[in-house]
Amino acid sequence: MTELEKVLHRVVDRVNVNLRELSMDVGPFVRTLVVPENFVRFYAFYGFTPHHPLSFQFRRSSLAGSYFLGKCVVDHSIVYKSDVRGDELKTKGETLKCGSLEIPLHEDEMIRIKDSFLVKTLVHSNSHDPESPEEFLIQNTVALHYANIHGSPIEGSFLGPFGTVDLTTVHDCVIGSFAYVQRGELAHARIDPGRIWVQAGDVFEFNYQYPMEVLEKYIHLEAGKKPRGQLVDFVEGRKKDYEEIFGLVGKELLDSLPKGTKVSRYAVVKGKNRIEENVLVAQRAYIEDSRLGRGSNAQENCYIVQSELEGNDVTAHGGKVICATLGNKVFVGFNSFLHGTPSCRLTVGEGSIVMPHTVIDLEQPLEVPPKTLVWGYLRSPEDLASQTIPLEKLAHHKGELQLGSMYFRGSGHEFVHGFQHRIEHILEANGAFFDGNAHPGHAQKTRNISYNTIQPYPDGPLKGLYPTIEIRP
Amino acid sequence: MTELEKVLHRVVDRVNVNLRELSMDVGPFVRTLVVPENFVRFYAFYGFTPHHPLSFQFRRSSLAGSYFLGKCVVDHSIVYKSDVRGDELKTKGETLKCGSLEIPLHEDEMIRIKDSFLVKTLVHSNSHDPESPEEFLIQNTVALHYANIHGSPIEGSFLGPFGTVDLTTVHDCVIGSFAYVQRGELAHARIDPGRIWVQAGDVFEFNYQYPMEVLEKYIHLEAGKKPRGQLVDFVEGRKKDYEEIFGLVGKELLDSLPKGTKVSRYAVVKGKNRIEENVLVAQRAYIEDSRLGRGSNAQENCYIVQSELEGNDVTAHGGKVICATLGNKVFVGFNSFLHGTPSCRLTVGEGSIVMPHTVIDLEQPLEVPPKTLVWGYLRSPEDLASQTIPLEKLAHHKGELQLGSMYFRGSGHEFVHGFQHRIEHILEANGAFFDGNAHPGHAQKTRNISYNTIQPYPDGPLKGLYPTIEIRP
Repeated sequence: MTELEKVLHRVVDRVNVNLRELSMDVGPFVRTLVVPENFVRFYAFYGFTPHHPLSFQFRRSSLAGSYFLGKCVVDHSIVYKSDVRGDELKTKGETLKCGSLEIPLHEDEMIRIKDSFLVKTLVHSNSHDPESPEEFLIQNTVALHYANIHGSPIEGSFLGPFGTVDLTTVHDCVIGSFAYVQRGELAHARIDPGRIWVQAGDVFEFNYQYPMEVLEKYIHLEAGKKPRGQLVDFVEGRKKDYEEIFGLVGKELLDSLPKGTKVSRYAVVKGKNRIEENVLVAQRAYIEDSRLGRGSNAQENCYIVQSELEGNDVTAHGGKVICATLGNKVFVGFNSFLHGTPSCRLTVGEGSIVMPHTVIDLEQPLEVPPKTLVWGYLRSPEDLASQTIPLEKLAHHKGELQLGSMYFRGSGHEFVHGFQHRIEHILEANGAFFDGNAHPGHAQKTRNISYNTIQPYPDGPLKGLYPTIEIRP
Repeated sequence: MTELEKVLHRVVDRVNVNLRELSMDVGPFVRTLVVPENFVRFYAFYGFTPHHPLSFQFRRSSLAGSYFLGKCVVDHSIVYKSDVRGDELKTKGETLKCGSLEIPLHEDEMIRIKDSFLVKTLVHSNSHDPESPEEFLIQNTVALHYANIHGSPIEGSFLGPFGTVDLTTVHDCVIGSFAYVQRGELAHARIDPGRIWVQAGDVFEFNYQYPMEVLEKYIHLEAGKKPRGQLVDFVEGRKKDYEEIFGLVGKELLDSLPKGTKVSRYAVVKGKNRIEENVLVAQRAYIEDSRLGRGSNAQENCYIVQSELEGNDVTAHGGKVICATLGNKVFVGFNSFLHGTPSCRLTVGEGSIVMPHTVIDLEQPLEVPPKTLVWGYLRSPEDLASQTIPLEKLAHHKGELQLGSMYFRGSGHEFVHGFQHRIEHILEANGAFFDGNAHPGHAQKTRNISYNTIQPYPDGPLKGLYPTIEIRP
């Protein structure tokens, strides 16, 4: 057994110990997932700028193709083609508010990945757990393709492909493929594939369950096999475009960009595009024949193809927008798949919110009115009735509400205004409101960034593992 | 003053303190040498394999374009486009013999570069100083373009462009441009530009002094200006070819190579070449339309153009071989410039030794007989009489010998056999004698190598300096 195999073996055992109550064996899901040769085929890299805290420690880990920013420790883990973005970590001296309590941070927050196996996973934001404000911990965890660990310390868990845990501390859970959970804390639970679940204590709860046949079509996972379905086909079909940009040691191309705008040199930008001021195109984003209006941001693993984005539009991590026209300040949530065609375009009116993990796959044109909440699975205008609601209407709603497979209870006001508040925060954090001086965000702070590439042992007993690396200012 | 400027300022002051007795101010030689923008323009990189010890510590330094291998610490230094190759460092437990003394090494040897400024300098081999066997120290030193610090701990010194210190511990010295010194120890001395000086205590001494007008033509340095002359023009004229290879994140291309052969992906290989078994082409070597016969090695900064190398030929660091035919086991010493033309080819017979820093610049064809020692400046067959001697003849010589500007005294036998012994060692160390199993050398041990690239702060007060980086197995 090579040292790399030992690491993998150990991760499987550790996750299984945590999941023994749920009788889950993660082994068959991970053992045949990555071709061994690929662990030495792709370099990993980390970025640093004068604007970000800097601290990396990589020990006994395989990091092929992964990207790191900020402060991050990786121990005894396999982090494969993942993005670990510590640009929203809290800093020493900040205060974390939790109800009436105020917890001052005694040190800078760090992301710590330990005894885990992450494949094409995104780790971003910061620990929203008031019980552990200085450490964003990912431990004894397996997360598969395009999983999204967003502000969510996670321990002893399995996260299926395209699954998202958002602002939620997760202990000993199995989160199914394409499931989305945002509820503060979650322990010893099994979340079905395709369940979209947002809960804020007793204040409100949003629930939607994808039908099995839809999941079967778009994203499906079986033990011992790679994930499959149209979502997988879509991203795999565009994989080749990344080869060239990852094969060049490039510099950021700032000269040709509008003021305050950042297009990562690790993004694919194809065809004819118009990219306006204060736009952020993050690494591994994919832009083709599109317009990104002022203040829009295109986050990691998002795809924007043949689309018009008016401005201040957020395409969150993993969001896909194809043949669509988005009005001003449209929010497209994590891993959504908005798939129009040249003859069946999708139009989304200004101020609308597309819930995370929404699938719109059109065979005829569709227009979503302005200021509308959209969720679930839509194929034609007939689906609007059961899978959208005007934000204004929901904001005035109190109590229970059933629309198609969606169940809502509680305060519509809190839900809508909480969401809108978060969107404002995302725009601000990404630099949409930069005025040339004040309100810089990620777009401006990463305009000029250095990337260091790192590779594993090419051969010998440590083949595929990286040397111990420590970086500080 | 930026932090980088402070580092430079400090280096200048520290070197000047050491050189106060020689009234040398190195400031004017270094201050305007490198365009500030270049300190952020080129990445540095380090290699590692399962066959080499691994330890790097970079602190408060600028490393633009430099390469590191083995064990190396860099503190408060500027190491610009230099090669620091720790693949011949001694290891813990080895014994260093010095006369009748035997000194066991209590730890692995490291290269330590401290408070120094190295430009396009090569650091290789190991500390030949029995007084400091575990540390190959380069401190308070300025070394300029294509300087060569070979197995030579050096402190408080200035090394001019194309200057070499070889197997010599150097304290508080000024070594002129294109000078070559090999004499064990040297302190508080000023070596004139173009002096070639090999001394082994009372056993033998070799001395040659280039005429001023030749230095003026080939390599000349004035305070406040960049080095100039035909040697500089030659390398500057080929600079563009390196841009492409340094712009790609490549893998070693092993498939198309003969067994036991290594061509660094950071070497330029142009035109039609034939590269045979057990050949080493090191990083920054330049090969064009040439044949490298079995067991030949092309070391850093060497150029082999339109030439035929029969086999087991050594082109040492910085050696240039243009339009030449070299017989078997020809040695071309450091920084030699063998410049034939298509109509005036140079032929060097088998077993000949071209002394380091030899210039052969032809306007008519020239043939150097087999088993001949060559030195100095040759332009035509008439120069053979005063600048070559059959090795056999020299080996039988005892006492003084004057030939042209060359003065020799002592034991010709020791000089010739010592040199031949060293060449055998170089061939062995580079892997020329690899039989598919035993006697692997650099060519075989670096066949499969990983490179990590590192960049400096792109902006801000630390612009041009690298973060603190520590790497271990």
